[in-house]
Amino acid sequence: MYGEIALFSGNANPGLSQEISQLLGVPLAPADVFKFANQNIFCRLHQSVRSKDVFIIQPIAVSYNDKGEMSTINDNLMELLIMIDTVKRDSAGRITAVVPYYGYGRTDKKDQPRVPITARLVADLISTAGAERFLTMDLHAGQIQGFFNIPVDELSAFRILSEYFHQKNIKDGVVVAGDIGATKRSRNFAQALDLPLAIIEKRRSQRKDGSQAEALNVIGDVKHKNCIIFDDEIDTAGTMVQAVHFLKGCEAGDIYACTTHTVFSTPAIKRLTESPIKDVIGTNTIALPPFKKFDRLTILSVGPLLAEVIRRIHLGISVGELFNE
Amino acid sequence: MYGEIALFSGNANPGLSQEISQLLGVPLAPADVFKFANQNIFCRLHQSVRSKDVFIIQPIAVSYNDKGEMSTINDNLMELLIMIDTVKRDSAGRITAVVPYYGYGRTDKKDQPRVPITARLVADLISTAGAERFLTMDLHAGQIQGFFNIPVDELSAFRILSEYFHQKNIKDGVVVAGDIGATKRSRNFAQALDLPLAIIEKRRSQRKDGSQAEALNVIGDVKHKNCIIFDDEIDTAGTMVQAVHFLKGCEAGDIYACTTHTVFSTPAIKRLTESPIKDVIGTNTIALPPFKKFDRLTILSVGPLLAEVIRRIHLGISVGELFNE
Amino acid sequence: MYGEIALFSGNANPGLSQEISQLLGVPLAPADVFKFANQNIFCRLHQSVRSKDVFIIQPIAVSYNDKGEMSTINDNLMELLIMIDTVKRDSAGRITAVVPYYGYGRTDKKDQPRVPITARLVADLISTAGAERFLTMDLHAGQIQGFFNIPVDELSAFRILSEYFHQKNIKDGVVVAGDIGATKRSRNFAQALDLPLAIIEKRRSQRKDGSQAEALNVIGDVKHKNCIIFDDEIDTAGTMVQAVHFLKGCEAGDIYACTTHTVFSTPAIKRLTESPIKDVIGTNTIALPPFKKFDRLTILSVGPLLAEVIRRIHLGISVGELFNE
Amino acid sequence: MYGEIALFSGNANPGLSQEISQLLGVPLAPADVFKFANQNIFCRLHQSVRSKDVFIIQPIAVSYNDKGEMSTINDNLMELLIMIDTVKRDSAGRITAVVPYYGYGRTDKKDQPRVPITARLVADLISTAGAERFLTMDLHAGQIQGFFNIPVDELSAFRILSEYFHQKNIKDGVVVAGDIGATKRSRNFAQALDLPLAIIEKRRSQRKDGSQAEALNVIGDVKHKNCIIFDDEIDTAGTMVQAVHFLKGCEAGDIYACTTHTVFSTPAIKRLTESPIKDVIGTNTIALPPFKKFDRLTILSVGPLLAEVIRRIHLGISVGELFNE
Amino acid sequence: MYGEIALFSGNANPGLSQEISQLLGVPLAPADVFKFANQNIFCRLHQSVRSKDVFIIQPIAVSYNDKGEMSTINDNLMELLIMIDTVKRDSAGRITAVVPYYGYGRTDKKDQPRVPITARLVADLISTAGAERFLTMDLHAGQIQGFFNIPVDELSAFRILSEYFHQKNIKDGVVVAGDIGATKRSRNFAQALDLPLAIIEKRRSQRKDGSQAEALNVIGDVKHKNCIIFDDEIDTAGTMVQAVHFLKGCEAGDIYACTTHTVFSTPAIKRLTESPIKDVIGTNTIALPPFKKFDRLTILSVGPLLAEVIRRIHLGISVGELFNE
Amino acid sequence: MYGEIALFSGNANPGLSQEISQLLGVPLAPADVFKFANQNIFCRLHQSVRSKDVFIIQPIAVSYNDKGEMSTINDNLMELLIMIDTVKRDSAGRITAVVPYYGYGRTDKKDQPRVPITARLVADLISTAGAERFLTMDLHAGQIQGFFNIPVDELSAFRILSEYFHQKNIKDGVVVAGDIGATKRSRNFAQALDLPLAIIEKRRSQRKDGSQAEALNVIGDVKHKNCIIFDDEIDTAGTMVQAVHFLKGCEAGDIYACTTHTVFSTPAIKRLTESPIKDVIGTNTIALPPFKKFDRLTILSVGPLLAEVIRRIHLGISVGELFNE
Repeated sequence: MYGEIALFSGNANPGLSQEISQLLGVPLAPADVFKFANQNIFCRLHQSVRSKDVFIIQPIAVSYNDKGEMSTINDNLMELLIMIDTVKRDSAGRITAVVPYYGYGRTDKKDQPRVPITARLVADLISTAGAERFLTMDLHAGQIQGFFNIPVDELSAFRILSEYFHQKNIKDGVVVAGDIGATKRSRNFAQALDLPLAIIEKRRSQRKDGSQAEALNVIGDVKHKNCIIFDDEIDTAGTMVQAVHFLKGCEAGDIYACTTHTVFSTPAIKRLTESPIKDVIGTNTIALPPFKKFDRLTILSVGPLLAEVIRRIHLGISVGELFNE
Repeated sequence: MYGEIALFSGNANPGLSQEISQLLGVPLAPADVFKFANQNIFCRLHQSVRSKDVFIIQPIAVSYNDKGEMSTINDNLMELLIMIDTVKRDSAGRITAVVPYYGYGRTDKKDQPRVPITARLVADLISTAGAERFLTMDLHAGQIQGFFNIPVDELSAFRILSEYFHQKNIKDGVVVAGDIGATKRSRNFAQALDLPLAIIEKRRSQRKDGSQAEALNVIGDVKHKNCIIFDDEIDTAGTMVQAVHFLKGCEAGDIYACTTHTVFSTPAIKRLTESPIKDVIGTNTIALPPFKKFDRLTILSVGPLLAEVIRRIHLGISVGELFNE
Repeated sequence: MYGEIALFSGNANPGLSQEISQLLGVPLAPADVFKFANQNIFCRLHQSVRSKDVFIIQPIAVSYNDKGEMSTINDNLMELLIMIDTVKRDSAGRITAVVPYYGYGRTDKKDQPRVPITARLVADLISTAGAERFLTMDLHAGQIQGFFNIPVDELSAFRILSEYFHQKNIKDGVVVAGDIGATKRSRNFAQALDLPLAIIEKRRSQRKDGSQAEALNVIGDVKHKNCIIFDDEIDTAGTMVQAVHFLKGCEAGDIYACTTHTVFSTPAIKRLTESPIKDVIGTNTIALPPFKKFDRLTILSVGPLLAEVIRRIHLGISVGELFNE
Repeated sequence: MYGEIALFSGNANPGLSQEISQLLGVPLAPADVFKFANQNIFCRLHQSVRSKDVFIIQPIAVSYNDKGEMSTINDNLMELLIMIDTVKRDSAGRITAVVPYYGYGRTDKKDQPRVPITARLVADLISTAGAERFLTMDLHAGQIQGFFNIPVDELSAFRILSEYFHQKNIKDGVVVAGDIGATKRSRNFAQALDLPLAIIEKRRSQRKDGSQAEALNVIGDVKHKNCIIFDDEIDTAGTMVQAVHFLKGCEAGDIYACTTHTVFSTPAIKRLTESPIKDVIGTNTIALPPFKKFDRLTILSVGPLLAEVIRRIHLGISVGELFNE
Repeated sequence: MYGEIALFSGNANPGLSQEISQLLGVPLAPADVFKFANQNIFCRLHQSVRSKDVFIIQPIAVSYNDKGEMSTINDNLMELLIMIDTVKRDSAGRITAVVPYYGYGRTDKKDQPRVPITARLVADLISTAGAERFLTMDLHAGQIQGFFNIPVDELSAFRILSEYFHQKNIKDGVVVAGDIGATKRSRNFAQALDLPLAIIEKRRSQRKDGSQAEALNVIGDVKHKNCIIFDDEIDTAGTMVQAVHFLKGCEAGDIYACTTHTVFSTPAIKRLTESPIKDVIGTNTIALPPFKKFDRLTILSVGPLLAEVIRRIHLGISVGELFNE
Repeated sequence: MYGEIALFSGNANPGLSQEISQLLGVPLAPADVFKFANQNIFCRLHQSVRSKDVFIIQPIAVSYNDKGEMSTINDNLMELLIMIDTVKRDSAGRITAVVPYYGYGRTDKKDQPRVPITARLVADLISTAGAERFLTMDLHAGQIQGFFNIPVDELSAFRILSEYFHQKNIKDGVVVAGDIGATKRSRNFAQALDLPLAIIEKRRSQRKDGSQAEALNVIGDVKHKNCIIFDDEIDTAGTMVQAVHFLKGCEAGDIYACTTHTVFSTPAIKRLTESPIKDVIGTNTIALPPFKKFDRLTILSVGPLLAEVIRRIHLGISVGELFNE
């Protein structure tokens, strides 16, 4: 229906792009994507993508280049938009933005007055730039799909992660929602592993002197159980590590953290490595620089999943069926 | 900034419209809004709304006229859209759709392949027809605000409902989330009433003979406690009544159901009246026909809240501050 | 250019969909399209339509299911929109809405102040939902094509109907426009059958006492002639039956009613069956429930025409040339 | 609501603009609107219209300047669009296009395959340029209002014209539709004057030698009657003059032609002046150059009507009520 | 990817269309594109372009038909838009507007207050009508590409023109920018021919009596040199001929004028033929009527370039690479 | 017409915002605009801007906070977009983006194949976010105004800068365009100061060994003259300092650099301070951190100009006339 696949990689996760490229046997489109001295991002394709079925791979996340220089999430978003504009103006046949991690996903509603809904804004920016399809993984809320008016394929690392724990075969396990917001997601994980569910609830209350007290309590049974704390992303790891300590205080057994997106904002690494957590399991939707890796961290690859889905999208084969096998 | 307020009421909840009209001291715009014999909805304003600040009041819900004839949710949605088109083509100054209940709100994500996101579709239809602002109450998910690109004011009956229970002053109470999806909402209600939280979880499992078993269990403590089951809407009351029976089996005390939107689809009335529920508390965002009312049902009015917010929107006064008093 | 044809049928006219399916040798896409208890329409495709050339068949008309339960015109419109959203979000290659009867077509202009132009609104809703092409039959006014900005193919049952009368070979015939609005259409039918034209005109006048008098008169010659009253649709049959009685009073011979769209709103069936009309000729653009059928009614099928045009659209063959054979 | 009125006149009908200006007591905005040597139209306002309520007056019709040089309909359409762009970029508060004659109105449907619907295209161009409201007179078809998505006020010269004939008080009159397409419009005129209606029908038939014959016949009674042939516009006057001769052959009495828009394309003037027509009544929606005026032509002014409506739009007063007085 | 190429030619440059047609071996689509008596442009395709890859060839320039009748730039723009609407409504597979000369290109910015940016307006009109791609030559400013949101291929006659002078091998040459605005373009031409650059600057100053004086001066060396005055278009030739006389006064040698677009508005021909210019070199992006041709004028064809690019666009082959050979 | 002015300042140039605030006597809207740990920008208004006339002040440039931490140009662009979304969703009456420096302005055309037109993309992003008007200063190319479809007011520091040199009263001056691209702008500056113009041209040529040679030459007279090198922005100062050295080699006198936008990307400061330039004159459209300031740098404020224009926009007074005084 379209010309052949063209893979175009931004700078935010080149390793994942290369893995996808190798799995598909399609080389990455030769191009320069760089910042001028004035920080303006520029992009120049060395070969035309005219009429091709273009997939642009770029998580909306902080990244680091080989020299350890940081690109902010906004840099990488803007890089994505500029790459879309470039292939649109080069007459691409079809443009799919492949965004393994959708930054700004947590600003998805107005839970207080006079704040933005940036997750909708970003969806509009991507459409405005010219993307015709959107491929992503484990959105913070399923409703974000509805922020787009172009077709969205949302994949999940759920199976990759649950399969890992199946094989690990943890005894006396319980899946723990680290806070109320993670309840539904954790319940599904618990069900997949056939484990019970527990929930940690944080309550804020007013002390008599006017200051605020914060108390954790757990709903469900964790004593002497090996806990898997599950969530879509680990950001600063504050909630996570607080949960770990609280669980330890409840005489829980081993504690695992399991997540799709290893955002790991400062001071996540410090917190995690200093905590009594046994293992952290994540995926490579976001590229981790060397200084964000540590011994107890296991990274599973979403590359094979993304490569297969790109192949199916290109051929017009059902993606949903991939999950029904 | 605009001309004076014009209130334009659809047929889905005339009682609420009249209450708002009286509270604001602004008569409802004289108009015919009716179905032709061929079921085509038609609408004719008797006076011009040129340059006025028009508020169209219409929940997207099933309704019944005086003769007991039903209008489907789609009839009432289409009636809303046609009313918007009418005032747009009559050169209204500004058009605000006031939709106390946002139907289709539960179809807000693709939790399985090849299904629609109707909650986004409806948002687009409302904008396409010409609404410039949207005013609603207790959306099924906060993210639905982001489905709109026009400004949305989402009000909540939370205070009206929590105030009711404050005054009722229930001893040994617990707020119960009737299913996992209601956890966060119930937690907030529990916190407002300074009550503990319990969660009912439904697990589906495969029996050996291949059939599916479904088991409820409760996370948290309910024994001998008076339970308030809280959710944004009661539809067929299936989950609700199942929870009631389960809680009774757990030796719970009195059980109250509390909700903003009394959708009450068949067989909700039968289920609720036959259940050992003590009281059902709802609001009038949806108009209930006589046959959907019953003794143990208490309806609180959202009219004063909506009237005050319409007044503030018209005058350009902060709505958010209303909640900070 | 696109993948193969996928036929997706709504509930408004399943018989016509099946006929088209058989003629094309393309099975209907397996799917559930139904109402929840709360009247929310939902839709779930059992197989992906990714990249396919999707045709969604759904007249915008009242319909009845096997149990005799009515779906309103708004239900069926909304069902169409939701089906479009579903296939759009499932990455359909191209989406054509096939709407044999375009409801709301008579609300196509503001012939009085402060009314909607619903026929334009509906066109916008269909585009907003995501349809890329529109296929319909005998619009109430040709200008409605211009309400769409997507390509429209408007087919006509004109030949099917005129061919029927050619074969019937009525002697001393005259084509009668039942009211002024049907004049042009009737003239074309008269010309095709090589028959003269007569027009019935209704005049309203003020009586001396202030009440309104209404008088019919015929322009042209009908005495002892066999009349064919022709129009695009028969709704409540009020105008039609009034014309029949008037013509009988003018000593006309046999009277036939001929139309594309058998809307037959109450009390059309009563009026038609009680009238001295000889025969009513219509087509199956709208599905008739058993209680709307009667002896003197002949229904011709538009299925072969629609099937052939869908085939041509899919193959990129001229549709206009179909009419030049 | 907006700043004061600004009237901005194109070159297509300066006389009408000046009349409106005087009636409103609002001077025309000083500006240069002219063609460069390369025929590019350019426009330069001498004073800012920032925040003002701008009305741009320009029929979409052929016009002639003082030197007799013609501007084509496309020149005048483009002039309108450029004027809209100019005031939009000068931050006008609100922009209303006042187009007394809507050219291209007759290309409003696809009555044959592979033709444009230019009347819709022009509506889109006007919106694209930035007009927010549209004010026009006697559209060729009421449905053209639906081609716009911005509010349209369509005025009619119907009363101005019918009032003229009321005062003329013609005896033994009949209103004649010059062709089938003018039937409805003529019927309304007949009803307003309390006169009977007659219709001239043209039939094309195949001669035995393959050539086409064309025959006129009249439906209704015209013998010894004074005829008023009514239509929305007179273009080349071909149909009109053919009808005049045919009516004379039917022993009709005096024949009047009555129309809103005096398009008068060549050879209309020759045809009309050489025909036995008694009088032609039109309005000044289109500016006539000296060589298109003739003795038996009476031009009534729509200026007072347009001025009053502009005043009402500006003040936010009902326009529809103007017609109910 | 699309059906075969369909070439659709407007009336503005039929000679160029035919040349392209012959080079591609693709006949021009049979069609009528003409003006009615009322100057309304109409268009009717004789064969369907359904699903085809349609290229519509039409410069936005003044043109003359065989009888010497002028079509204004606005006529030809509107003709283009109507042709686009026609093929869109005939379900063309893809629509590319091929506009060798982009009229209104010089109104590309607001260099004074309260003027339009017509070059952006025209871009919007073309998109609104339905063009999906745009192919043009030597825009007045490269930024005009950014006025479009659809992909633009801008070709240049630069090589055709520079190649001509390479072969002519002019001794002691200098490229002269006729005014400041042509500096950059002239520099590039100078560099391509390896010639020095000179610039003519016009200064306006206030005389003591309040009148304005205008003085030319040349920056760079022209004495005894053979000058090539280069610009994108020659309009009235005023600046050009002024430069020629000025250069002659500076004792320059032979003077050549070289341009892509021979707009030649009156009195260009008179000015050029009466001037001491040696030769004028242009291309056929604009069709010249016989009375605009003269002895010292050489016209080079852009047909082969356009044909090759159309072929590449159709096949999805890089166009940029064409310039890298 | 709207509520009162609300000034909302981003973090990119707080000093300028405060100056404007003081000049207008309107406090900056209290708000938090900050980055979360994950670099997500968030924004929260402390007071509602409902119905107000909101001006958001934010150059699209690199900036530094008090701690010297850099925000990239993309951070500041995204901050602007998020602020717009926030006030849009808080129902602002009108939203004007005030962007004293328009980053990405130099990527305004495709001067090579397969590159983006980011200046258009950014314009679209700003409109998509919800800005209704745009206010900026000295765009890199005037055509960028045409990239917007919302009204743009482009101010110039031209007078502020030329006034400075008028007062300085430099003898034997010449304005020098540092490269060909600055010619027109420099000519206007020269004319304003009544000084001659000179142009530095850079030529690239191929050496015999295949390497590239680059040669500067000056067109016009600079010997013993005091030079003002004028341009819209100084980025890395590479071209500027190259010109300075070249001019010194041509025996020029004092050399001044004059610009609106002091981008000063690394290594601009090093280059400028080490060069024999006498003085650098710029404005505060971009906030300079302490380490980018140096002795020979003079910064003039655009605050009074921006404040006056904001006042005029709010009141609906002509801005163009400001320049005609």
